[in-house]
Amino acid sequence: MSVVVIGSVGYDTIETPWGSARDVLGGSATYFAIAARFFTPVSLVAVVGSDFQPHDYGLFAERGIDLRSLKRLDGSTMRWRGRYHENVNRRDTLELALNVFSEFKPELTADQRRADYVFLANIAPALQEAVLAQLNNPRLIAADTMNHWIANEREGLTRLLPRIDLFMLNEEEVCQLTGEHNLVKAGRAALRMGARRVLIKRGEYGVLEMSDHTMFAVSAYPLEEVVDPTGAGDSFAGGVIGYLARCGAKGDAMLRPAIVYGEVMASFAVERFSVEGLVRLAWEEVDQRYRTFIELTDPRHSRWTSP
Amino acid sequence: MSVVVIGSVGYDTIETPWGSARDVLGGSATYFAIAARFFTPVSLVAVVGSDFQPHDYGLFAERGIDLRSLKRLDGSTMRWRGRYHENVNRRDTLELALNVFSEFKPELTADQRRADYVFLANIAPALQEAVLAQLNNPRLIAADTMNHWIANEREGLTRLLPRIDLFMLNEEEVCQLTGEHNLVKAGRAALRMGARRVLIKRGEYGVLEMSDHTMFAVSAYPLEEVVDPTGAGDSFAGGVIGYLARCGAKGDAMLRPAIVYGEVMASFAVERFSVEGLVRLAWEEVDQRYRTFIELTDPRHSRWTSP
Repeated sequence: MSVVVIGSVGYDTIETPWGSARDVLGGSATYFAIAARFFTPVSLVAVVGSDFQPHDYGLFAERGIDLRSLKRLDGSTMRWRGRYHENVNRRDTLELALNVFSEFKPELTADQRRADYVFLANIAPALQEAVLAQLNNPRLIAADTMNHWIANEREGLTRLLPRIDLFMLNEEEVCQLTGEHNLVKAGRAALRMGARRVLIKRGEYGVLEMSDHTMFAVSAYPLEEVVDPTGAGDSFAGGVIGYLARCGAKGDAMLRPAIVYGEVMASFAVERFSVEGLVRLAWEEVDQRYRTFIELTDPRHSRWTSP
Repeated sequence: MSVVVIGSVGYDTIETPWGSARDVLGGSATYFAIAARFFTPVSLVAVVGSDFQPHDYGLFAERGIDLRSLKRLDGSTMRWRGRYHENVNRRDTLELALNVFSEFKPELTADQRRADYVFLANIAPALQEAVLAQLNNPRLIAADTMNHWIANEREGLTRLLPRIDLFMLNEEEVCQLTGEHNLVKAGRAALRMGARRVLIKRGEYGVLEMSDHTMFAVSAYPLEEVVDPTGAGDSFAGGVIGYLARCGAKGDAMLRPAIVYGEVMASFAVERFSVEGLVRLAWEEVDQRYRTFIELTDPRHSRWTSP
């Protein structure tokens, strides 16, 4: 079944202690779409400026990502500049120029409105609501958010939550949202705010999934080389929702494998700058790392021989 | 098979944002011995002062913990005072009085020297070496350490490592020891230093196990209430080594269940101040949480209904 993602497409400049990349393709919807496309058809709802490169259109198009709702406006594409430290869990935003993204008004085509799976990437809650108003009863709505919206758009976010099936946010964000310091308590509080299920992202430490009747705790894939953590969360979401859509599942039964696929996509994404780790990837590698991941984390499995 | 632990027994004063405890039983060997005793006979090699309370002797004795090598010296028992913050992953040592512990010379009885399983808790590498010199070919030697010894006794620690089957240390420590920032690289570097296997403790995030041919990544048990993190690592070690000793295993085949039992013992330890979470514990609770833990972390298990 098909997936629609609404989010940002932009150019990132990334500085790390081991290298840098200038004006490379980024944005939440970009990572999500490329990751999810390994599993299922994807429509991309976003906005770019007149400087958006043919090569980057091509990168989406050659994967068969539906670009009918990728608006092109006069002006510059969104730009973000960030710096990571030796400890890749910390990053600083050095510059953010919204450019044409500040005029983003997501508009879905008639068939996109009937999509079964929808991912509201990290954009203003008001925009996320505007998308919900266009939808025709999807099977699953997932949403991400960030500290900025929690601090400044709490009302809109609170209104949104009861409509969200899968609410994805990171550890600091769920604590900020709920005022809890303990993660399990924070997760429960987020569920009380109305989200049907929360996926709490803990970076290299993995994910904690919670609903009223389920819980799943899993480590991230242990990587020897993290080059660029940008887009890890959106690639994770792409794997989770892409896999659920491929199975036509609402959650529950297929959720754990979906989360593992999410971790797998995130692990490939962070091994290269920008989307390089995802675009050069073959399905066989995804499948192989999925199986390795299962062996690596199975608490009953008695012995695993590393490659 | 029996386990011998060499480490500290002391009195802790603990301050947390949600309460405090004054002069309560603590020390690495204390937590280890009580946790391991759920699985197998344990001998305690440590030192206390003349102020050590009959009640606390009783607490060990009524569990059948062998106290023949718990020396009593004139003077005060070791005392530690520490403070935890809202984020329980951070703690400050406010005061450390070694007292009689500074005269600690571990001496094992003839039968303790023939022990099959030995845990060298976090004491000076020179003392750990002094214990090794007394041992008669044990099946498994495990050791812990801390930042202080890595910084100030690196030579002794380095000499020790090739004799260690299970080297347990936390994330910051393995990075400090090896100069690596990436955890997988740090683990491999620690293996190159001679340890046969490393268990990297990540607090509430779980554990990463590595040897030349194995790897296992597991989350910690997700707790809603962490009252006092003191002793979590030693309770973890008690569960791991206690379970291996009970099975007569060297590692490999039984290691993953052993690590899960370690996580289970640590989770009980941190739910109460001091050793309260362990001493009031029934085996049935350990067994139940073990099974819950397996269900909670099994990456293939599709649905778990929480209690």
